[in-house]
Amino acid sequence: MYYRDYLQLDKVLNAQEPESFKPGNEPAHDEMLFIIVHQAAELWFKQILFELDYVMSVFRKSRIDDNSEDLNIVRHRLNRIIRINELLNEQVSILHTMTPLDFLEFRNLLSPASGFQSVQFRLIEARLGLEMENRHNKDYYKRTNEGGFEPKDFTSITDVEKEENLLSLVNKWLERMPFFQPEYWSAAGSPQSADENHPFWKEYRKRYVESLTEREAMKVKDFDFTFFQKKDDLTEEQMAMLKSALSPKAMQAGLFIMLYRDFPVFQTSYQILDSLVEIDHQMATWRHKHLVMVRRMIGMRMGTGNTSGSGYLEGALNKHYVFKDVAALSTFLIERKRLPELPGELIGKLSYNSEK
Amino acid sequence: MYYRDYLQLDKVLNAQEPESFKPGNEPAHDEMLFIIVHQAAELWFKQILFELDYVMSVFRKSRIDDNSEDLNIVRHRLNRIIRINELLNEQVSILHTMTPLDFLEFRNLLSPASGFQSVQFRLIEARLGLEMENRHNKDYYKRTNEGGFEPKDFTSITDVEKEENLLSLVNKWLERMPFFQPEYWSAAGSPQSADENHPFWKEYRKRYVESLTEREAMKVKDFDFTFFQKKDDLTEEQMAMLKSALSPKAMQAGLFIMLYRDFPVFQTSYQILDSLVEIDHQMATWRHKHLVMVRRMIGMRMGTGNTSGSGYLEGALNKHYVFKDVAALSTFLIERKRLPELPGELIGKLSYNSEK
Amino acid sequence: MYYRDYLQLDKVLNAQEPESFKPGNEPAHDEMLFIIVHQAAELWFKQILFELDYVMSVFRKSRIDDNSEDLNIVRHRLNRIIRINELLNEQVSILHTMTPLDFLEFRNLLSPASGFQSVQFRLIEARLGLEMENRHNKDYYKRTNEGGFEPKDFTSITDVEKEENLLSLVNKWLERMPFFQPEYWSAAGSPQSADENHPFWKEYRKRYVESLTEREAMKVKDFDFTFFQKKDDLTEEQMAMLKSALSPKAMQAGLFIMLYRDFPVFQTSYQILDSLVEIDHQMATWRHKHLVMVRRMIGMRMGTGNTSGSGYLEGALNKHYVFKDVAALSTFLIERKRLPELPGELIGKLSYNSEK
Amino acid sequence: MYYRDYLQLDKVLNAQEPESFKPGNEPAHDEMLFIIVHQAAELWFKQILFELDYVMSVFRKSRIDDNSEDLNIVRHRLNRIIRINELLNEQVSILHTMTPLDFLEFRNLLSPASGFQSVQFRLIEARLGLEMENRHNKDYYKRTNEGGFEPKDFTSITDVEKEENLLSLVNKWLERMPFFQPEYWSAAGSPQSADENHPFWKEYRKRYVESLTEREAMKVKDFDFTFFQKKDDLTEEQMAMLKSALSPKAMQAGLFIMLYRDFPVFQTSYQILDSLVEIDHQMATWRHKHLVMVRRMIGMRMGTGNTSGSGYLEGALNKHYVFKDVAALSTFLIERKRLPELPGELIGKLSYNSEK
Repeated sequence: MYYRDYLQLDKVLNAQEPESFKPGNEPAHDEMLFIIVHQAAELWFKQILFELDYVMSVFRKSRIDDNSEDLNIVRHRLNRIIRINELLNEQVSILHTMTPLDFLEFRNLLSPASGFQSVQFRLIEARLGLEMENRHNKDYYKRTNEGGFEPKDFTSITDVEKEENLLSLVNKWLERMPFFQPEYWSAAGSPQSADENHPFWKEYRKRYVESLTEREAMKVKDFDFTFFQKKDDLTEEQMAMLKSALSPKAMQAGLFIMLYRDFPVFQTSYQILDSLVEIDHQMATWRHKHLVMVRRMIGMRMGTGNTSGSGYLEGALNKHYVFKDVAALSTFLIERKRLPELPGELIGKLSYNSEK
Repeated sequence: MYYRDYLQLDKVLNAQEPESFKPGNEPAHDEMLFIIVHQAAELWFKQILFELDYVMSVFRKSRIDDNSEDLNIVRHRLNRIIRINELLNEQVSILHTMTPLDFLEFRNLLSPASGFQSVQFRLIEARLGLEMENRHNKDYYKRTNEGGFEPKDFTSITDVEKEENLLSLVNKWLERMPFFQPEYWSAAGSPQSADENHPFWKEYRKRYVESLTEREAMKVKDFDFTFFQKKDDLTEEQMAMLKSALSPKAMQAGLFIMLYRDFPVFQTSYQILDSLVEIDHQMATWRHKHLVMVRRMIGMRMGTGNTSGSGYLEGALNKHYVFKDVAALSTFLIERKRLPELPGELIGKLSYNSEK
Repeated sequence: MYYRDYLQLDKVLNAQEPESFKPGNEPAHDEMLFIIVHQAAELWFKQILFELDYVMSVFRKSRIDDNSEDLNIVRHRLNRIIRINELLNEQVSILHTMTPLDFLEFRNLLSPASGFQSVQFRLIEARLGLEMENRHNKDYYKRTNEGGFEPKDFTSITDVEKEENLLSLVNKWLERMPFFQPEYWSAAGSPQSADENHPFWKEYRKRYVESLTEREAMKVKDFDFTFFQKKDDLTEEQMAMLKSALSPKAMQAGLFIMLYRDFPVFQTSYQILDSLVEIDHQMATWRHKHLVMVRRMIGMRMGTGNTSGSGYLEGALNKHYVFKDVAALSTFLIERKRLPELPGELIGKLSYNSEK
Repeated sequence: MYYRDYLQLDKVLNAQEPESFKPGNEPAHDEMLFIIVHQAAELWFKQILFELDYVMSVFRKSRIDDNSEDLNIVRHRLNRIIRINELLNEQVSILHTMTPLDFLEFRNLLSPASGFQSVQFRLIEARLGLEMENRHNKDYYKRTNEGGFEPKDFTSITDVEKEENLLSLVNKWLERMPFFQPEYWSAAGSPQSADENHPFWKEYRKRYVESLTEREAMKVKDFDFTFFQKKDDLTEEQMAMLKSALSPKAMQAGLFIMLYRDFPVFQTSYQILDSLVEIDHQMATWRHKHLVMVRRMIGMRMGTGNTSGSGYLEGALNKHYVFKDVAALSTFLIERKRLPELPGELIGKLSYNSEK
């Protein structure tokens, strides 16, 4: 076992052939940096996909045992994805050491290739839950030979939609949370189902509305609380956030976990929900950092892949959130001290098995 | 001399009195973090203003001697502002350790105060060159007692507009660049002025147009090159970028510096222009990070300062660029090898005084 | 409620009076940065102490209920300390924008004050568990008026030793872990106590020794496994690491938690142990970053506080680890697949109370 | 041109074959992370070597024209190396998401391979100026098949010593600085040479000694100022720092640049010297971060490459500085206001060629 063989460095370190270094062109020094920063990003994308695969394999189980290590490892590996995303966002800044004039020396040689064509990045988006239909400028993806994807790659991205994505898996996981089962709620009046008419939710809604200031009450009054069948008078941003991808039942469970996360059994679940929002936000930061970099690098020019350049990135910035429903749950929180108390039967089920 | 006295720690470390810790309220542990993260930010804002003051004092000189240390110190201190901004952007992430539910415990106690009311941050924006007229939701600023500024503070922000801001100072500095003086350009046909009819710019424009791909040529064909009296058919983003704050003469000088920055005398000037763009972009990142944090923290609720919350931040994100003209110069670059050669007289003036 | 009043900015932003700006001195521009970077650090130290106080208050309880939120909040707040330390370590790099010559302009005015005299930093060290006796160059601390502490401050640091520090509290917490109680281990042969003769540890020790390579076995053969009554033939580094601050019983419990952390009930405890090691390492990084900065700034000169400058920092670097015993536990791990199986009674006690 | 082909992703993304995933072993999930973090580091090492090659090619010129872009590009690319090193140091922290127990799952499969064997990292050290003779535990390097290098790789590292390294190139560059030529110094008494008897240095030395406090004077009294033929009574740290790799003449030139860097012609040179020190310090931080990580990961065990583990890293930490002489120059600075004035002839030579 030797370091170089183990890491297959003969492959990895012989995969940089700048176009401008080829016969007939003038070598542009900074093209090497350009290649390496992208290759390093792709290595990390591979790692993110590897972790995502694991996370999704756990959520694909028909049932996750609270006494197993499953959720804890999911939490741990989502956290790793977050740290990798942090690094990727740092890494963008290395391209700031390439000036616009230096980029211009080799930029035209790349056309119509561009970072838009990263299959792994598109797969990450797709597995998280971004569908082709909802992508900004979705036509771009199909423009083979003009900056879009080769058909095989396009298909590999859309094929992900044939399976469940992380968003839909999380939705199912939240839906099957056992704590709304009627048997735990007898004292609360034998609810038929976990719907909005359940006494718990009626009470919660009442306390929530009381907790709002007058102005806030006006702003949220048109939301149907369970959840998000909105009425009138909302801004477009609110509209966009309301097109919920999670079911009402899943939203209720998510909110419940957020509210009662002091119970040990909810702590890991809460951290998982929080991590999903964090990943979404980091990918937004990634897009924003690219937008800022592209503006600096090419001004108002088009991207090498025939996109509109910075305009394209700006559009994607606000449309590509996947877990916006989870983030939106913050809207509906109330303070701990106002929380309805839970029935004793349920508390027992949420606890460790030790005689206290 | 003792560390504590020198740093006046008796003041600094006794300036945290969380509202929720006061009699009658329930202590919310995380309010301490909330206070300290804002105080640390304000300390750094003070430092940024201190550096900006110095930078502006140099640009206010009627003439900057290339043989003085002036520009080098400007470069150095703009770079310091950049490093501070990087830190401020990192610092935002510490608030991620406060969960939405933890924030809710004391959030209502703060109303209508909010980060919107940071006078120092508004002064930084104003001194860079953001005018009240161009601020997103400019009405908010005047709403005293409802989340806006006290009249005295409002006035201190708008008073900055009575003096020159960094943007206008940079414009003047660029305008008085000596390298377009006719005496250096005799061989090029005795130009009357540095305007767009100068043979250099005619030649440059020709080479620029030749350097564009067909698609790019269509995208930029309607720009009047010196600069930016635009025609039709532009997107709104392009429109916004074209409302130039720099004069054509300044834009020409800026482009000239970017193109010929390999001459030592231009190197520091180039780094200064680059730093201004970087500062703009970091402040955009700051706004984006806040947007992301607010979304996570309060969802669709209003901000404590009666703003629309995340909606407000989103609006400011794209409107508050100050040095967008400098960034836009990248649009008009051509490759080094296509650059018109400079007249010998001028080259002599751009060089060190050593017999080589 | 107004932003400035809430944050007491009149105090915080009026606490910078550079010595060099005073009458009779020549203003040194960078002294402002020097003051502000230290004040910002002190604000963060206050926050760290605030979080540490909370963490210690939990560990001071005679018993921590696994069904309470206690440990989860401890985990969360230790994690916050880690994020703050990360920021502090980033912040050091801002001082890199001050050059040695710029520092020299005001350096002599500060003597004999120095960062050595940060009472809050010393309190953090002391509450974590660093005793005066074990501090590098402990004489320095008493040298009032010559770079050491004023008597009142010295006393406040040593007074911490009258109470339990985090290290000793963690030791007690680990010692009282209930999972070594004989009643859970009947199947394993009715152990008398949790000592090294317990059949579990005998078996573990056997498997551990088998897991070592020949070279490794030689390196660790002289350790007494439960734990660390070392024999001969160790390097000084190993010696230092072996002077254990945790009791054998606590070390056993810590190792047990590390090994069996897949049980939900151990997950938070494991993360807490991991965080303690991380905090230690970040403080080492802090010291190393200071060492590097001091070397660059003053070369071989003495520190303003009459320390030997970089020499002092180098000494502290390796001596001030507090949780080195927890870090050392890694030495004794074996792979998951080799782990002895636990008795069924115990597994029941480590599980959630749900019929599976 | 297609993104995947351009970046040769078929090579880069098919170069991960974890040992533990091979038939007969149990897959250890985290081995993928372990491989990718090392491959990403190697990509960046390649980039650093690429930039270093360029930098050294400039210094290899017999003469660097101040009117060329040479030094400016050197400055720019050294700064890029610094940014890459920052990223590499951030990247280490991703391995913190691998716990010691997770590492143990595949650790033994790697032996005797280890990060010690990174040829590219050793080449970076060697080209900077670290010779085999001065490496900590230099015997390790030759132990082929036991954790050291294959003979071909060992030779490639030591072969670098046949050429000039960056340290010796910088030494020559500093030595040939023209500003000590006698013709510029007539007013100062027609010095024969740039040695320590030159009136300028005599005067400087006098002012330097006057600038010291009494304690400092004692600490530095035994240094021979031009430079560093030390006397007695120094600590070992001082001794180590004094074994100068730069010649007295080069040290004088370096100090002169530091002192008079406000002249534009020195600004870039000063930044270059500063960058070299920064690179040294970042590599020290890299070693320290690895030390900290290894301690956490394997405690007191040996490294997979049969090194002593953390002990080895600790030794390298303080011995592998290359530009310590440049850093040590800070020792000998005096305040700007005390600087001897330069002769008018020289000032003319240090200035731009414009009639002012």
